[in-house]
Amino acid sequence: MSDSVSGVPGVPGVPAVPARSSLFDALVAAGPVASQVGDEAWVRAMLDVESALAAAQADAGLLAWEHARSIAEACRDHGAFDVTQLRAGVGGAGDPAAPLVRALSERVGGEAARFVHRGATGQDVVDSAAMLVAARAREPLLADVEHCTDALAALARAHVGSVQVGRTLAQHAPPVTFGLTAAGWLTALDAAADRVRALRFPVQLGGAVGTLASFGEYGPDVVTSLAARLGLAEPVLPWHTDRTPVVDLAAALGGLAAAVSAVAASIVVLAQTDVAELHEEGPPGSGGASTMPPTRNPLAAVSARACAKQAPGLVADLLAAAEQENQRAAGAWHAEWWPLIQLWRVCGSAVHWLRESLRRLRVDEVRMRENLDAHGGLVLDDDPAVTTHLSRERIQRLLDPVEYLGSASVFVERALTAYGRSRRER
Amino acid sequence: MSDSVSGVPGVPGVPAVPARSSLFDALVAAGPVASQVGDEAWVRAMLDVESALAAAQADAGLLAWEHARSIAEACRDHGAFDVTQLRAGVGGAGDPAAPLVRALSERVGGEAARFVHRGATGQDVVDSAAMLVAARAREPLLADVEHCTDALAALARAHVGSVQVGRTLAQHAPPVTFGLTAAGWLTALDAAADRVRALRFPVQLGGAVGTLASFGEYGPDVVTSLAARLGLAEPVLPWHTDRTPVVDLAAALGGLAAAVSAVAASIVVLAQTDVAELHEEGPPGSGGASTMPPTRNPLAAVSARACAKQAPGLVADLLAAAEQENQRAAGAWHAEWWPLIQLWRVCGSAVHWLRESLRRLRVDEVRMRENLDAHGGLVLDDDPAVTTHLSRERIQRLLDPVEYLGSASVFVERALTAYGRSRRER
Amino acid sequence: MSDSVSGVPGVPGVPAVPARSSLFDALVAAGPVASQVGDEAWVRAMLDVESALAAAQADAGLLAWEHARSIAEACRDHGAFDVTQLRAGVGGAGDPAAPLVRALSERVGGEAARFVHRGATGQDVVDSAAMLVAARAREPLLADVEHCTDALAALARAHVGSVQVGRTLAQHAPPVTFGLTAAGWLTALDAAADRVRALRFPVQLGGAVGTLASFGEYGPDVVTSLAARLGLAEPVLPWHTDRTPVVDLAAALGGLAAAVSAVAASIVVLAQTDVAELHEEGPPGSGGASTMPPTRNPLAAVSARACAKQAPGLVADLLAAAEQENQRAAGAWHAEWWPLIQLWRVCGSAVHWLRESLRRLRVDEVRMRENLDAHGGLVLDDDPAVTTHLSRERIQRLLDPVEYLGSASVFVERALTAYGRSRRER
Amino acid sequence: MSDSVSGVPGVPGVPAVPARSSLFDALVAAGPVASQVGDEAWVRAMLDVESALAAAQADAGLLAWEHARSIAEACRDHGAFDVTQLRAGVGGAGDPAAPLVRALSERVGGEAARFVHRGATGQDVVDSAAMLVAARAREPLLADVEHCTDALAALARAHVGSVQVGRTLAQHAPPVTFGLTAAGWLTALDAAADRVRALRFPVQLGGAVGTLASFGEYGPDVVTSLAARLGLAEPVLPWHTDRTPVVDLAAALGGLAAAVSAVAASIVVLAQTDVAELHEEGPPGSGGASTMPPTRNPLAAVSARACAKQAPGLVADLLAAAEQENQRAAGAWHAEWWPLIQLWRVCGSAVHWLRESLRRLRVDEVRMRENLDAHGGLVLDDDPAVTTHLSRERIQRLLDPVEYLGSASVFVERALTAYGRSRRER
Repeated sequence: MSDSVSGVPGVPGVPAVPARSSLFDALVAAGPVASQVGDEAWVRAMLDVESALAAAQADAGLLAWEHARSIAEACRDHGAFDVTQLRAGVGGAGDPAAPLVRALSERVGGEAARFVHRGATGQDVVDSAAMLVAARAREPLLADVEHCTDALAALARAHVGSVQVGRTLAQHAPPVTFGLTAAGWLTALDAAADRVRALRFPVQLGGAVGTLASFGEYGPDVVTSLAARLGLAEPVLPWHTDRTPVVDLAAALGGLAAAVSAVAASIVVLAQTDVAELHEEGPPGSGGASTMPPTRNPLAAVSARACAKQAPGLVADLLAAAEQENQRAAGAWHAEWWPLIQLWRVCGSAVHWLRESLRRLRVDEVRMRENLDAHGGLVLDDDPAVTTHLSRERIQRLLDPVEYLGSASVFVERALTAYGRSRRER
Repeated sequence: MSDSVSGVPGVPGVPAVPARSSLFDALVAAGPVASQVGDEAWVRAMLDVESALAAAQADAGLLAWEHARSIAEACRDHGAFDVTQLRAGVGGAGDPAAPLVRALSERVGGEAARFVHRGATGQDVVDSAAMLVAARAREPLLADVEHCTDALAALARAHVGSVQVGRTLAQHAPPVTFGLTAAGWLTALDAAADRVRALRFPVQLGGAVGTLASFGEYGPDVVTSLAARLGLAEPVLPWHTDRTPVVDLAAALGGLAAAVSAVAASIVVLAQTDVAELHEEGPPGSGGASTMPPTRNPLAAVSARACAKQAPGLVADLLAAAEQENQRAAGAWHAEWWPLIQLWRVCGSAVHWLRESLRRLRVDEVRMRENLDAHGGLVLDDDPAVTTHLSRERIQRLLDPVEYLGSASVFVERALTAYGRSRRER
Repeated sequence: MSDSVSGVPGVPGVPAVPARSSLFDALVAAGPVASQVGDEAWVRAMLDVESALAAAQADAGLLAWEHARSIAEACRDHGAFDVTQLRAGVGGAGDPAAPLVRALSERVGGEAARFVHRGATGQDVVDSAAMLVAARAREPLLADVEHCTDALAALARAHVGSVQVGRTLAQHAPPVTFGLTAAGWLTALDAAADRVRALRFPVQLGGAVGTLASFGEYGPDVVTSLAARLGLAEPVLPWHTDRTPVVDLAAALGGLAAAVSAVAASIVVLAQTDVAELHEEGPPGSGGASTMPPTRNPLAAVSARACAKQAPGLVADLLAAAEQENQRAAGAWHAEWWPLIQLWRVCGSAVHWLRESLRRLRVDEVRMRENLDAHGGLVLDDDPAVTTHLSRERIQRLLDPVEYLGSASVFVERALTAYGRSRRER
Repeated sequence: MSDSVSGVPGVPGVPAVPARSSLFDALVAAGPVASQVGDEAWVRAMLDVESALAAAQADAGLLAWEHARSIAEACRDHGAFDVTQLRAGVGGAGDPAAPLVRALSERVGGEAARFVHRGATGQDVVDSAAMLVAARAREPLLADVEHCTDALAALARAHVGSVQVGRTLAQHAPPVTFGLTAAGWLTALDAAADRVRALRFPVQLGGAVGTLASFGEYGPDVVTSLAARLGLAEPVLPWHTDRTPVVDLAAALGGLAAAVSAVAASIVVLAQTDVAELHEEGPPGSGGASTMPPTRNPLAAVSARACAKQAPGLVADLLAAAEQENQRAAGAWHAEWWPLIQLWRVCGSAVHWLRESLRRLRVDEVRMRENLDAHGGLVLDDDPAVTTHLSRERIQRLLDPVEYLGSASVFVERALTAYGRSRRER
């Protein structure tokens, strides 16, 4: 059951690969994103970078195509690389590129082996792989978001007339519709997804110090070709200590988690037994009570919220780690890897649980009306400038809360139109 | 010297307005941004919102122009509002809008007073004012950034041939030029500024629960007109609990602070006595040693770094505060105000100190060459795949480090071109 | 209304002292702690340090008592120091000690002026003052906590028999008593206060590099005497870059804020209109609605929560800033001041608002019973291992929820006893 | 190579157990702590809790000893539990206790199975296990710290006379000794370890809502017995939503990481090629350059710093998650698990890498003296009050920097004495 392998060089008896910590992963790393940022995805991405790097040098006339093809072939079979051995090599080398290059060179063999990784530094491979991983993980993430927003659009449409008491500062307030509530969630999530959609992921290639010295005058050509081959953007300069791409990514993921947290928190509030306007109808056994009638525990929303709550600190760590000095940083770069991976995992998991929550969601319109009526059906706006000067006629109208919905349905329509446009334009 | 006024309602003897904490502000809130997010700027922005709100209702035919003009006139004289009294009113009301509306209504007087703030909730005014403050604070912030990037562009150009030893993981590495180093700083800062430039600031107007019930069918028209009058964007929906605009702003400011921190940290490293390739030539007395020959303390870079280091936690607090439920949140919204203001202050201050550091900066090319030569003028790339297989001819070239600069000058040129284009396009 | 004074040296036209940002202070810096960490408190503390430093040197025979007395006399009149001028001097000097020493030396005059600050570095004064400020701010902070815990003890005692439905994961669960709920809040707050009570605040005195070189062999004697005179602890070594005292303080304040946040969040949940088991009876006008019947907005709990939510990011910034190198750090030390002051302010304010919330709190036992009965008075434990195997007799007992309270009253008693003992022992 | 098993209930095709993310673990989770907080350690701890829970009920006369022994026996063989299956069950149940109880009940079989987990809620088991895991992980953590402090004590002793230039704000300053530098690191680390040593880990047992209703009047007895059997502390009350124990733990680990970061950062600074007073002599291949002469990359210090830099955000997330409402929280509790585990991992790894760095460390006294002499051997204190008024005789002494060491050696002695006492007293 142990994954431990050989020790850290020089520290006898200590396993180089620590025990696995995945017991809680079904909650904190649920959904399809986690596997796109897992070890095998990283190994594949690093091999893709090495492969494209050789081809880009061949493109520039710096390497015989024969060698580039040998390297590409060895890289293609990424399943053949022993992840456990790579894990073990990271501690000695300081990053995963060095053990990968070693293993790759062995597989390539012959003269071509000499050209594996040529001209690049380890950070080039790790950073480019991080961007490739990001580009690939973004797809299932956005697909899960779209499941959420589609479900919310349907809710908004279906409940455009479902009157619900408004709640401000935890107090009953003038009425809204649940359609408007859902439209607000839709708009927030779609805006957050826009930030993720807008991200551009640049390739990294600078060599040891960002000068691409090994390529002579052909450095920029190799970068251009590498970017094109990997489907990544071409940066103005190597960004070894300019962490804009990582900071942008962290900000977009953190923003998405924030949007999820707000929706999930609202679902939890509305699913309280005391409110009971929503509930999740989970599968048998969800919520832990296999022998009882299904609880109405909003477990999926609870899990979405729990995942989203882990993002802010990770974003803070990544922002702080951006303080990177000179040509390549002494610690701050190494501090990025794990928070970034984990941010992907909790963000992907938060979205996935929200999707699941929306799938399980049941809306109780009768209860909504009961809660509204429980306080006489009328809660006046608490802003004195409004309430003091209400016209007699308006007060009359207020006696029927359904009349007092202002632009609720117009806003729902507007949100659906904007979402429809945004969806078509992608 | 005390600003204390009347007590918190119900807590006798406790000052409602706490003692001032500004002793360290010249370091942590330096530059022109702080005054754009200070109390008077907020009061002015809130009054601008109230003024435009009345006018927008007049635009929609909901209010007599005569009243709108009375309100506008009272708002225009923002210097007449007693900030101390407003401060005192915040504790009882829960936000600054209520005491402001009270004071404004008194100043307006007559029948028009009844229409002050009509249809809006306090959060509409505070959020719209926050966006107006953001739009106004962005200008001097970006102006300071541009001073920095212009200075960096000049450094990159001037030092395109100033050879400097590269430094990776704190160790000497192959050579670069200081021009390339400066070009990297330029590119990072300009990219971070792009994020700030791209921000759109939406108006907030939803009334008590986001339905704009008081405006009947004219709600959306009032919003459109309000946005136009304030020069703010028109949102799809009111965003009382969709904190995208705040999260976006926090992310962009946090990213800018991160970029500053990297540049400032590099300046500090290069200005170490042991390296001495840069130093700041401060005014007499800077660094505290008025009676001694000027120290070469890089105090401005140190201050920039100190300010930038305060951003990540504030961003985390703002992301966490985005978990806002239902129509208006019970605590999380109130938790935003101060971290957002402070994020503006430290970010503005970080940029301002960096501008000052670059103004004070002196480059010692002779020392750069000495440091490079101190280790034989040649540090080989530490990636084995490169160094093992260097051709004899290449090793020959490496003996002259100046030859070993690869694409350094091309990259400098490219960064300057990109910056020039970016600058022209604004 | 402007506080702006002369410009940052070398940056014409820019105010050295930025605009004030206190508009929200009545919410985010309420209560007596803020004034203990305000500018005047800092100036007083720094003067106390300078005064004690001179006396400690006299104790050690390094300074004539006559000079020490002159310095002490000048320091005593702290109101005479112009805070605005000190603020302005900070930007040029890099910390507030330098302008203070300058001003103090002028006031002392004559030969004694030469001995002001002798042997100390600016960081000695600022760090020692920070600890003195901490010792002084702790008193009103703990007094406010004690008001809270006394109120909670009274609530626990009064409601030992007030049955309330338990709520887990937002769902109704088996019954508790409100007395037990309050006892849990009491225990949590008192434990958090214990951490603050246990803090020891060490004096800082190391001179420029921690060797106290100026005092020859008498360095340790001066430290001992200085600590005794200030009522601070004597550290093993100067701690210029060992930030344990700051980290400990941040952790204790962050823990206290966390405890407050949990209590305040529970109050908000129980004060929701939909639950209505608690409400705050605020003073007229609280919640902003001066012209309406008092809303039951739990504004004090909302404010407590809002303040407490600002602590985690500040703690993170302080922990990150503890990465301080060599003898005195180039930026990370300067990054501490403001987050530490602000942590005091939000923490003090959170506790103060909680105190106010508890003062305003009204408990509705009838509603508690109604909510319990709304679901048949019986919610079974959702853990299958329990519920599957309940004896017939136990199920019988469960039909009366009041019987199903287990150790609730014993636990209340235990919490009160522990609190009573803790209170006596102080 | 895949660990994926059955899907999340209701989400066909999605693996319930995500891909592994351990590629970087040899860097970010090095050393013996990670395996103490890994999945198998958690399973073992949860089984220990279930076993002791049954025995504690037998102690109280609530359960036949025969059943308690059957349960204990099944728990003892923790290697027999299928971790992969447990992982898969977490997503459906909401926490790992439910699938564990299910698996355990099956293994126990017969009548005794009915008494597995009786009276407890899932949170009781997870929280108690978290404390047991903490108690067990603390041992190797503190052992690694002690290796560090012993090494630092040896360095302080050996280099009590090794003169080194002081460095403040990155500038040369008056001299210190490397012995004093090391003594400062020793004192900081030992103080941080003290906080970890002082932690008390309370058992958690409250049943569904903290009343221990299932145990009738025997609840407190069962708690007492459970605590004794597990070697944990007995809390005043169940702490389901009073997260003091988690907050205290986070603060202590965060403080330890902060102390490590400061030492590691100083090592990195002193190991810069430009300073070269220290270097790490790593094993062949460390730093990635297997074919070259060993680089002097301070890779272990870099890794220690990288790990420590990940703590502040995790602490912030845990503090924010302490906002837990009512009897058991809807999301915030679930948000704790993973940041807490990860905090253990990065903190353990930071300490382990620091131990490794100190093992590899080589001190270059000759270079220290050269750096000191490079600036004429004399850097005056930059505090004007000192330097302006130096006596002629003192200036004379200053010409020999070795004379200008003040209390350096006394402080070293004092630090060693304090450490010796602290070590004996454990």
